[in-house]
Amino acid sequence: MPSGAVGRRRSDGKRTHAAILDVATRIASIEGLEGLTLGRLAEELEVSKSGVYAHFGSREQLQLETIAAAQEIMEREVVAPALSEPPGVRQLKALCERYLSYVERLVFPGGCFFSSLLAEMDARPGRFHEMAQAGAREWWGLFAGVAADARERGELAADVDIDQLVFELDSSLESANYYYVLLRDPAVIARARRAVAGIIDRARAPGASRA
Amino acid sequence: MPSGAVGRRRSDGKRTHAAILDVATRIASIEGLEGLTLGRLAEELEVSKSGVYAHFGSREQLQLETIAAAQEIMEREVVAPALSEPPGVRQLKALCERYLSYVERLVFPGGCFFSSLLAEMDARPGRFHEMAQAGAREWWGLFAGVAADARERGELAADVDIDQLVFELDSSLESANYYYVLLRDPAVIARARRAVAGIIDRARAPGASRA
Repeated sequence: MPSGAVGRRRSDGKRTHAAILDVATRIASIEGLEGLTLGRLAEELEVSKSGVYAHFGSREQLQLETIAAAQEIMEREVVAPALSEPPGVRQLKALCERYLSYVERLVFPGGCFFSSLLAEMDARPGRFHEMAQAGAREWWGLFAGVAADARERGELAADVDIDQLVFELDSSLESANYYYVLLRDPAVIARARRAVAGIIDRARAPGASRA
Repeated sequence: MPSGAVGRRRSDGKRTHAAILDVATRIASIEGLEGLTLGRLAEELEVSKSGVYAHFGSREQLQLETIAAAQEIMEREVVAPALSEPPGVRQLKALCERYLSYVERLVFPGGCFFSSLLAEMDARPGRFHEMAQAGAREWWGLFAGVAADARERGELAADVDIDQLVFELDSSLESANYYYVLLRDPAVIARARRAVAGIIDRARAPGASRA
């Protein structure tokens, strides 16, 4: 076999693997990480369970790769575009807006993958619980870093409580996610947008220009 | 058998049934309604699966009775004590505070039973999805009724947007629940209390006395 064909075959294999993981993220966002089994994935893909097994080797490996694939999607849909905005309040607003858009567009059919993971694993000790804890701290840390930067630039008030600000912004986002997925009512997203705008406005430095 | 013994036996049976349901609400709050099977419940109770089957007859019946039992617990722990406060802003504050206390005390070991149900069933069509939708509307409706009453009494501003107010209060409560269960950090509850106080204060009628 010419080496070009080998390369093509390897790259086909990678594409197949990525496509399988894409389906896995969709299943897990609806049915939970506990609902994601090799058998359930095989059923959805209409292939044999041994075919799926050949790709992952274990259910835990499938679950871990699914989380990693979902992280990439969230990075691409929410974090990277928000951080490409100018730093300060504009970045903070962009993080909120990108998240709400990602919920509204149902990038994952069950809503935010990581909110689902948090709610599923919040009280179940183990590896995924620890990953959900780390994920929550990382998410808050991302917002806190951007907000602290906005404060240093004089766009947010010098005495703003960053942890409180992040809790309030994130509460609006999480709540929008759960209720929008449940009710499919655009008013939920509109209320979250209004809540976010109010929270940021109240945190602004007196006299700062409106970014 | 004397009729008194029959009566005792019936009432023992009811107590046993209620005790089984109590365990079922605890399992479901941690592992989800999908995690609640006759087998899982039998394992937790250290009885035979057929013994549990005799009580419920089907898994769905077990799930439905578990939801009803959880509703009674929430009614007793949150709704009834809040509604025993004087109507108006005091009742609205009491609803928020009773909910936060119920989360903080881990009345259900997996946090609020209905927040868990919502997150589990938000994207899964069927009977439980519809129950979660109805539950969310009822919960918001409870807050909206109390808030509208506070507005009529002149304690909240005449132009306050009730739906927006309810969304913002509930976002703080839901977020406190998920993150407190995940992180067991009292700061989460403290931030929710501060958020709730701010939301209610901003909605107050100018010059209204502080209830």
